[in-house]
Amino acid sequence: MTTQVRAVGAKSEKAPLEAIEITRRDVLPEDVRIAIDYSGICHSDIHTVRGDWGDMPYPVVPGHEIIGRVVEVGDKVTKYSVGDLVGVGVIVKSCGECDNCKAGDEHFCQGPTGPLLTYAEADPYMPGSSTHGGYSREIVTTEKFVYRIPENLDKAAAAPLLCAGITVYSPLKHWGAGPGKTVGVAGVGGLGHMAVKFAHALGAHTVALTTSPEKVELCKSLGADEVLITSDSEAMKASAEKFDLIISTLPGDHDMNPYLDLLGQDGSYVVVGAVGNMTHSFSLPKLMKRHRSIAGSQIGSTRETQEMLDFCGEHNIVADIELINADYINEAYDRVVAGDVQFRFVIDAQTI
Amino acid sequence: MTTQVRAVGAKSEKAPLEAIEITRRDVLPEDVRIAIDYSGICHSDIHTVRGDWGDMPYPVVPGHEIIGRVVEVGDKVTKYSVGDLVGVGVIVKSCGECDNCKAGDEHFCQGPTGPLLTYAEADPYMPGSSTHGGYSREIVTTEKFVYRIPENLDKAAAAPLLCAGITVYSPLKHWGAGPGKTVGVAGVGGLGHMAVKFAHALGAHTVALTTSPEKVELCKSLGADEVLITSDSEAMKASAEKFDLIISTLPGDHDMNPYLDLLGQDGSYVVVGAVGNMTHSFSLPKLMKRHRSIAGSQIGSTRETQEMLDFCGEHNIVADIELINADYINEAYDRVVAGDVQFRFVIDAQTI
Repeated sequence: MTTQVRAVGAKSEKAPLEAIEITRRDVLPEDVRIAIDYSGICHSDIHTVRGDWGDMPYPVVPGHEIIGRVVEVGDKVTKYSVGDLVGVGVIVKSCGECDNCKAGDEHFCQGPTGPLLTYAEADPYMPGSSTHGGYSREIVTTEKFVYRIPENLDKAAAAPLLCAGITVYSPLKHWGAGPGKTVGVAGVGGLGHMAVKFAHALGAHTVALTTSPEKVELCKSLGADEVLITSDSEAMKASAEKFDLIISTLPGDHDMNPYLDLLGQDGSYVVVGAVGNMTHSFSLPKLMKRHRSIAGSQIGSTRETQEMLDFCGEHNIVADIELINADYINEAYDRVVAGDVQFRFVIDAQTI
Repeated sequence: MTTQVRAVGAKSEKAPLEAIEITRRDVLPEDVRIAIDYSGICHSDIHTVRGDWGDMPYPVVPGHEIIGRVVEVGDKVTKYSVGDLVGVGVIVKSCGECDNCKAGDEHFCQGPTGPLLTYAEADPYMPGSSTHGGYSREIVTTEKFVYRIPENLDKAAAAPLLCAGITVYSPLKHWGAGPGKTVGVAGVGGLGHMAVKFAHALGAHTVALTTSPEKVELCKSLGADEVLITSDSEAMKASAEKFDLIISTLPGDHDMNPYLDLLGQDGSYVVVGAVGNMTHSFSLPKLMKRHRSIAGSQIGSTRETQEMLDFCGEHNIVADIELINADYINEAYDRVVAGDVQFRFVIDAQTI
């Protein structure tokens, strides 16, 4: 038995997104059915839909920043009840048996197929079909990959926490952002604006790194203690070796070297911006000089995701968003590609 | 007052090394004068002498792997007495006032001129002259940058500890090599053979990574628990994600990507081979996958250097060397460049 639900998806890499119907499975014992209220638009959605990351199993229904209410629970569900405010993020299943899954790092699942992505992957629960994401009215998924959303948060603006939020929160925590540390955030967009908010709330001296002098006040309003204009070579020189950690949300093959110069002893440059050209180069002596390192990070574990959401509840942190109706998604995509959004589009799922 | 001492140096980047005379300062209150017994040949010596790293203040007298006996001490010297067996390494002075110097990381000195190298840098003690290294009969230097050499060690074979040894010991300790960790050593040459010995003695599961199947037994005799032939793609695949740390002594712009695949969760690829092309590139998704990182390291602090020497005394660790007379230095240089030495040349300073 299955349910047909309304969704928005792309039927090919060249097609615009349009209203379609998709099939959701009936709830299994460990599943919850969620009536979706809001779904964020992530740059990954666009890359996936447009085929930038290779062939996809069309129709593709994107969306991995999902907020909604539990409307049905399976017999063995223990964490959630009907009516709970919950979220779903980038992954919906992992093997559960590898060392990383056992250690609670499901996002690094070493099983044969790795973590199951929320959309556009072969769906093990419905052979022949693929997973479908949050641009829809409902989703059915196992409770292990469902998160509790603090009720005090703005529900639409909480949606981007499920991908943009955790993508920067995880490395900030992993690399020790906190009091006494100077943390830079390179690129102040969808991910970067969340990183500034988190770094500030974690107590770090937070510096936004941007090419745009017109963003200074905006960055400060997000929580930046300082704003460093990266095209200002004198300012960059004056900030040399002052940073313990830089979270880089810059897309593609940017020149890392000017940022490496900013790192102090044991400083880390952590790249989370996974779009565009993925081959980077750097000058080795810059690393050798101070035990500096370059690292990468992607999303976070279920444990970290819930921790991040609870942290957001305590500190009242959400994304800055522009709420849109479903019929605006294609235009929103063009504006994301053009960098024309402060800072994240969220779809009102009632309009799907 | 100064002393003329015999040395071997190069008068230009094109000239072979030859016997010359150099001037050593008289001992200042915190200085010791050392009668040099042995001096190792480091690849850096060759790059410096041959102008690969830019203009040098010729004549250049290389050598920063120095073993000898104290023959004179200044009034304020507290650590050493005449007759002590001592060593001198890559640096002989630092500002002493910056945060890194105060923290005991003199090799990362942030003073205006950085750490003073043992050779081929403007000598602040003798304006107009430059520092001269260990290819000579004597050296005068401040006791802070002099190390105690355990008497039980083979004295000639201890010389390479002062550069090759500390260069790999420091990152092994910094990145936590020890019991329960799997540590790879990429490239088994002058630095690499020391890294294998140290990783083994530190209790790590030690894997030598080499392109040369004929080196398997040799690597095992150095202490490797396993040898991974990096050209064997099946073996590389079978070792994916098994390493906590890889110390890379590979020269120049090698392809890091196959090595990154070997790293497990939070694994680090630490490059210490500072010769050749210094711009490296890598594929970012390989880092994002497991919180992997790429880092660099160079030599070590005075504290780490003495700790390493004491560790060598306890574990009876020295380099595998070929002892030569001074008249063989030019031929030895050609053999180092050709990779034809197991594993380090050391000059008998009595023949200078």
